[in-house]
Amino acid sequence: MTMERHPRHFEEDLGQLKTRLLEMGGLAEDRLRVAVQGLVERDPSLLEKVLTGDAAINQLHIEIDDRCFKLLALQQPMAVDLRAIVAAVKINSDLERVGDLAVNIAEAASRYLQHPPVKELIDIPRMALIAQEMLRDALDAYVRRDVPLAQRVLTRDDELDLLKSTITASLDLILVSRHLERTGDHATNIAEDVIFMVSARDVRHQA
Amino acid sequence: MTMERHPRHFEEDLGQLKTRLLEMGGLAEDRLRVAVQGLVERDPSLLEKVLTGDAAINQLHIEIDDRCFKLLALQQPMAVDLRAIVAAVKINSDLERVGDLAVNIAEAASRYLQHPPVKELIDIPRMALIAQEMLRDALDAYVRRDVPLAQRVLTRDDELDLLKSTITASLDLILVSRHLERTGDHATNIAEDVIFMVSARDVRHQA
Repeated sequence: MTMERHPRHFEEDLGQLKTRLLEMGGLAEDRLRVAVQGLVERDPSLLEKVLTGDAAINQLHIEIDDRCFKLLALQQPMAVDLRAIVAAVKINSDLERVGDLAVNIAEAASRYLQHPPVKELIDIPRMALIAQEMLRDALDAYVRRDVPLAQRVLTRDDELDLLKSTITASLDLILVSRHLERTGDHATNIAEDVIFMVSARDVRHQA
Repeated sequence: MTMERHPRHFEEDLGQLKTRLLEMGGLAEDRLRVAVQGLVERDPSLLEKVLTGDAAINQLHIEIDDRCFKLLALQQPMAVDLRAIVAAVKINSDLERVGDLAVNIAEAASRYLQHPPVKELIDIPRMALIAQEMLRDALDAYVRRDVPLAQRVLTRDDELDLLKSTITASLDLILVSRHLERTGDHATNIAEDVIFMVSARDVRHQA
């Protein structure tokens, strides 16, 4: 089986694949950082950069997938090499999604900047830092095949999930506020009915 | 035309209709108050009362509609009297919706109580008070045919809308947090791929 492979080429190709993945991770992380920076510093030009700048990451996404397919087809790797390439395919699509999430963040941030600030942003920059570090560590763990580092990433996700449960609760409070606001709309309807009812009578009295 | 009507009966019936509408308004306002009190005091038994106690308001909803239809059909009212009954039909359905909104608030509050408190509740009790006062004033304006009071209700709605725009902005912040939390999920995916990749290799080395 090993005779059919070209070990030197394979290692070289795998090395290049890793370099490209790190490059893509860097781009994803960068876009995330810029999107949150645009939100925190209320700078629309930073958000615009994220909203319009996903060409590089999309191109890398296609190129990496292509590399993976070629390695699988031409080198027919086994065991850990096979798993490394399948992992690369999955990591590639994870990183592409992170690029999309950066766009989603920039979109929400653009809407947010149209209002006066609601509160000081503390949790969001913290979450962004954690997410960026998780990404970097996960990719380093891939490149170095470092299981303890990968396990630290899983632990850090618990921090994010904790912040998320606070967010879910905040959503319920927002729902309550919305229902109260709608109650006000119904009171408004009633008041408008009263004005119509009485005003039309006034008109009649004048006639 | 007036000969076909029974003015004394009509005034009496209209008076009863107003009394029932005020009663329904009182119920709606009460349910709203109890739902928000259950949230603020973290008392599930109050929320339960709201979640299970909409029979009275639903019954009144049907009865008031019935009264309105009978008045329209039998008395064939004109001008302001006609408008007063049509307004009653609309007010009746507004109040029924407010009763439903109280249930929605109790549902969101029940979920919220399952988490530790996210923050001190300041805006929500304030919004609830405004909404309750708006309801009461709008109904008083209806009964007294008081246009200036009805117009004050419209002004107060602007207060609620202002609080709502803060809420919309908060929603965008929550969206950003969610996107960051999902980014963490992708980093976690990558870390899990690494662990699988390396662990399987370890197993192979042991074999």
